[in-house]
Amino acid sequence: MATDQPQKLFKAQTLKGFRDYMPELMAPRQAMIRLIEATFERHGFQPLQTPALEYLETLAGKYGEEGDKLLYRFQDHGERHVALRYDLTVPLARVVAEHRNEIQLPFRRYQVAPVWRADKPQRGRFREFFQCDADIVGVNSAIADAETLITGLSVLQTLGIDGAVLHLNHRDVLFGLIAAAGVTEKAQQIACIRAIDKLDKIPAAAVQTEIETAGIDAETAERVVGQFLHGAMTIESVADRLSAASVDTAGLDRLREVLALVRAAGLSERIRFDPTIARGLDYYTGIIYETRLTDPRVKGIGAVMSGGRYDGLIGLFTKEAIPAVGISLGLDRLLAAMQELELVSKDSHAVQVYVTVFSEAQAVTAIQLAGLLRQAGLRAELDLAGGKLGKQLERASKRGARLAVMVGPDEATAGTAVLKDLRDGAQQTVSQADLASTAGALLAV
Amino acid sequence: MATDQPQKLFKAQTLKGFRDYMPELMAPRQAMIRLIEATFERHGFQPLQTPALEYLETLAGKYGEEGDKLLYRFQDHGERHVALRYDLTVPLARVVAEHRNEIQLPFRRYQVAPVWRADKPQRGRFREFFQCDADIVGVNSAIADAETLITGLSVLQTLGIDGAVLHLNHRDVLFGLIAAAGVTEKAQQIACIRAIDKLDKIPAAAVQTEIETAGIDAETAERVVGQFLHGAMTIESVADRLSAASVDTAGLDRLREVLALVRAAGLSERIRFDPTIARGLDYYTGIIYETRLTDPRVKGIGAVMSGGRYDGLIGLFTKEAIPAVGISLGLDRLLAAMQELELVSKDSHAVQVYVTVFSEAQAVTAIQLAGLLRQAGLRAELDLAGGKLGKQLERASKRGARLAVMVGPDEATAGTAVLKDLRDGAQQTVSQADLASTAGALLAV
Repeated sequence: MATDQPQKLFKAQTLKGFRDYMPELMAPRQAMIRLIEATFERHGFQPLQTPALEYLETLAGKYGEEGDKLLYRFQDHGERHVALRYDLTVPLARVVAEHRNEIQLPFRRYQVAPVWRADKPQRGRFREFFQCDADIVGVNSAIADAETLITGLSVLQTLGIDGAVLHLNHRDVLFGLIAAAGVTEKAQQIACIRAIDKLDKIPAAAVQTEIETAGIDAETAERVVGQFLHGAMTIESVADRLSAASVDTAGLDRLREVLALVRAAGLSERIRFDPTIARGLDYYTGIIYETRLTDPRVKGIGAVMSGGRYDGLIGLFTKEAIPAVGISLGLDRLLAAMQELELVSKDSHAVQVYVTVFSEAQAVTAIQLAGLLRQAGLRAELDLAGGKLGKQLERASKRGARLAVMVGPDEATAGTAVLKDLRDGAQQTVSQADLASTAGALLAV
Repeated sequence: MATDQPQKLFKAQTLKGFRDYMPELMAPRQAMIRLIEATFERHGFQPLQTPALEYLETLAGKYGEEGDKLLYRFQDHGERHVALRYDLTVPLARVVAEHRNEIQLPFRRYQVAPVWRADKPQRGRFREFFQCDADIVGVNSAIADAETLITGLSVLQTLGIDGAVLHLNHRDVLFGLIAAAGVTEKAQQIACIRAIDKLDKIPAAAVQTEIETAGIDAETAERVVGQFLHGAMTIESVADRLSAASVDTAGLDRLREVLALVRAAGLSERIRFDPTIARGLDYYTGIIYETRLTDPRVKGIGAVMSGGRYDGLIGLFTKEAIPAVGISLGLDRLLAAMQELELVSKDSHAVQVYVTVFSEAQAVTAIQLAGLLRQAGLRAELDLAGGKLGKQLERASKRGARLAVMVGPDEATAGTAVLKDLRDGAQQTVSQADLASTAGALLAV
């Protein structure tokens, strides 16, 4: 047997770019996930789960050249080419096409799940990370756009994050502004969008240089970039510019409608038109957005929620034209922000009552009392390391327990237990039958 | 852009051996996971999460030859040999060794996560499935053994599953009985255990034949098998047999203690000594068990919870000897059983209130009312497909909503809304300010 004579020690090592979530981090993370899921459900979204592995063909070519390179791909035991999922959107498109007959449109689904990208590991960036997505499939309307944005903003509100602002744009407005600046060739327009997407990370001059490498002259490139440098650019000024260049304004009209609906939902301060939002992924066709935190303590964390409309993606898998729009929340960025803002509750999973074991003879009683506490819905831990009572109470405190239960031979005979409040040291003797209700009352204070 | 001119349709196909969980299945499944996690937490277990991918070296050789073959393995972008996790136990052992300084023993952790095995797909058996594990690391004692079993049985109780029986055994009792029958060579003993593990699946004669292929004579093989054929074998009769053959009975003594503690917790009918339990995996060193459902409707489902003590596994990664014991619940088997037993609640995620949109002019009001309902904690869906009110109400029923909200121009002017109970068709007009509380009251009935 492997365990009898270990030849050598195996190295205990997390894979490069990956990490363990120890309980201190995992407990608040899980509390967050539950809040996010409950908020999605309140907004009418239903859970869906797709496999971690997909046929490579399903994923390849959907995320641009760069994305393709980051796919974890291999051949399985049947020599099928497979890949780990890269996001939750392409698998959703595959699901809608594959299960079209079971699905009633509009279809609202959410999914909270890990995705894998063989990215360069950096501080705070891992090769496995969790996305929380909510999408509405089957409708292309301002109200559907607004519903997803309202849902996402509601999640941030539920998590206690104030000062998040959703920066909204539309792909056609981006293309329109670039066309208005004189770039009309599609491939060049896309190169411009890729460069503009970096405006918040690199200097404008560098963005301009990048645009020039796509074969656009310096003057035009400067004009393109110049349009996006004024933070105060309003819908009206953009409308004027597009009209002056005879560019279609349907995208801008949609933006107006969506903004009006989201504002009507009482979220005026949470949303803003921002023509510089470009988004990297190729598949967006309508609104696109990123959500940023305004609190100076967490400004560096980046977009915590982003997404947009992708009316062409499902059409890659089925002839039927099926529009869709969605949001994606970055769980780990949100957790990092919440930790920084001290919004993370440490109590949601902590042990409430620690049941000591006076001696082996009292083990049965201790187990029974732990059972009563648990049946009453309390989180109770039974001491397993034994030793003197003082040691056991020390462990109780280390585990963060509020209360400790002690039963010695006298209490066992009398059918009682000593209940100790570990915050102030106060203790009382209660009948074992009343233990759970007394503990519950103390914890409720 | 990829979405502009699809050259050909991609095949929308779930990878062979994998499956999607559509909302009808995922919603009750998720409700189950929440109950399981809450029960683990009530028993003092804390959540841990490990990556899907591990170094191949971490996993290889831990699951026996057969398990090794089923590992999904490949080389990552840095040419590291990696594998998808095969269970949650070996990654836990790796975590304990790697994070030894952060962990206070005894360490109770739970994890609910998918594992991957390139097994032959069969009805009800998939290559990706979820395990729900709870383990206690750092103590080797009867009370620690009992705590894990009590936790697992409590999960089944919380899920409403009656008639589950935990069949408990101990590796040393198995080895002892095989030695008592005359097989003393370790490799042969292990071959016997592998064969006995199949006693509930293949005929006794076939088990005997398998034992003989390990170089054991027919008479001895018959004696080995014969010992395990009597369902009524008691602890006492096994004790007699082991004593008669001068075999150590420490394992049996531990079994007695564990049984006594679990019985003291009020679970006498849920646990039984069963010397035929063998478990396939190589790493068990103490108690081993499987939990079976007795209800005839779900007998074919197999073990829904199993596990045991594995005191040598962590020692493969660190010099410190760290004992451990755990349970593993098979989520999909449990779900299958609960569906069969009609224990699955369909209501936990269903939409409660469907908000119709009378016309585009009323969209703002509809969004605002949906917002009020959601803020009150209700699951509300806004109609997005439009059309006549009758059509919208049909969709509301299809979505399983209990109530529908309607606001026409008259109600909008009056600041009211019509609330319709879709079960009996009764409707009432309420002020918009009272909508959420009235809806909540109707749903509470």
